[in-house]
Amino acid sequence: MSKLRCDISVSADGFVAGPNQSDENPLGEGGERLHDWVVPLAAWRDAHAKQGGEVNASSQIVDEARAGVGAALMGRNMFGPPAGGAWGDEQWKGWWGDDPPYHYDVFVITHHPRGPVEMGGGTTFHFVTDGIEVALERAREAAGGQDVMVWGGAEVINQYLAAGLLDELELHVVPVLLGAGARLFDNVGATEIQLEQIRAVEAPGVTHIKYRVSASRESG
Amino acid sequence: MSKLRCDISVSADGFVAGPNQSDENPLGEGGERLHDWVVPLAAWRDAHAKQGGEVNASSQIVDEARAGVGAALMGRNMFGPPAGGAWGDEQWKGWWGDDPPYHYDVFVITHHPRGPVEMGGGTTFHFVTDGIEVALERAREAAGGQDVMVWGGAEVINQYLAAGLLDELELHVVPVLLGAGARLFDNVGATEIQLEQIRAVEAPGVTHIKYRVSASRESG
Repeated sequence: MSKLRCDISVSADGFVAGPNQSDENPLGEGGERLHDWVVPLAAWRDAHAKQGGEVNASSQIVDEARAGVGAALMGRNMFGPPAGGAWGDEQWKGWWGDDPPYHYDVFVITHHPRGPVEMGGGTTFHFVTDGIEVALERAREAAGGQDVMVWGGAEVINQYLAAGLLDELELHVVPVLLGAGARLFDNVGATEIQLEQIRAVEAPGVTHIKYRVSASRESG
Repeated sequence: MSKLRCDISVSADGFVAGPNQSDENPLGEGGERLHDWVVPLAAWRDAHAKQGGEVNASSQIVDEARAGVGAALMGRNMFGPPAGGAWGDEQWKGWWGDDPPYHYDVFVITHHPRGPVEMGGGTTFHFVTDGIEVALERAREAAGGQDVMVWGGAEVINQYLAAGLLDELELHVVPVLLGAGARLFDNVGATEIQLEQIRAVEAPGVTHIKYRVSASRESG
């Protein structure tokens, strides 16, 4: 069966976003530093329709993280809209412009029903109100045998971890302390989750650690 | 000036000891798994007067961590004694037997005055009641130009971090989730601490990440 994968940047003290997340600052105070390692990369710029950029030990990590993915999952807060935004009249189409960097079906886990939103470049946003397991089933179907990626935020990733549904997790450990914010691994039933280190890669300003994840119990 | 260094095993979710630490289980529930990577190593066995053992990518890390250290610091809880133990009549001499694996002066930060305890193999335990900065001064003096190591526990390491006194921190990131326990980086004034990644090394069942630490402010 195709895998459910996650890769995410995390501070040395375990946060994937800083404190006081807001519409103006969705990554929280200091949270943008979590991405300092990736933004200069050619591999990242290419995915965001920009030219040039650096090539270093992280480049292959980024390429691999994007390879073999056929669909994705994300939480309602990651999709948006900002508070007071035009979700009700269905104007909001995510943070990523007309051509989002996904190019596959993205399933947004939400309590608010809405029809699919087809974007440029092959990305379609679907809105799933039946919970994380149904969202995963639909994403697997859409992925057509390829893997499914859960993009975030922390709450949704932690829910998939707690449900024993995540198969691979790659942490991009960044030399930053945030002190507060959204913590990975919060309330996931840690003692029932097994990690196996698959590989670790040193790169400028980041260490990539990839784990195979399994759980003593499976939900569903 | 000689450096203040720390190296410590930490779970993927940021704990250096599991929950419910006790005399029988000083590393807390599940905490002994933090040391699974190091105990089989020849470098570790040698330091604990045992023969044989494995050599792998962690061996050099352990050798380097022990090299160039002339004195050490530790917290009262790490030294012991167990609750109800014979501290009062000065019978307790630490967990490490007659020949502790330090072979230098070790300064125990405590509220309870006590004369120095000289052990075999060059280890002497000193008891400092004037706080972490005085303890560090005395350790630096004893180290004679070599580095000083802070061994733990988490509370004392966090105090040195918060005071802006730690120079280097090597985390041995272990593929284990503990879910609760003693957390590194708790209440250290994270936003005033800068980390610079010096190196990362992949090894069996662990990733070693070494940081240079600096602080926006220095205490003292």
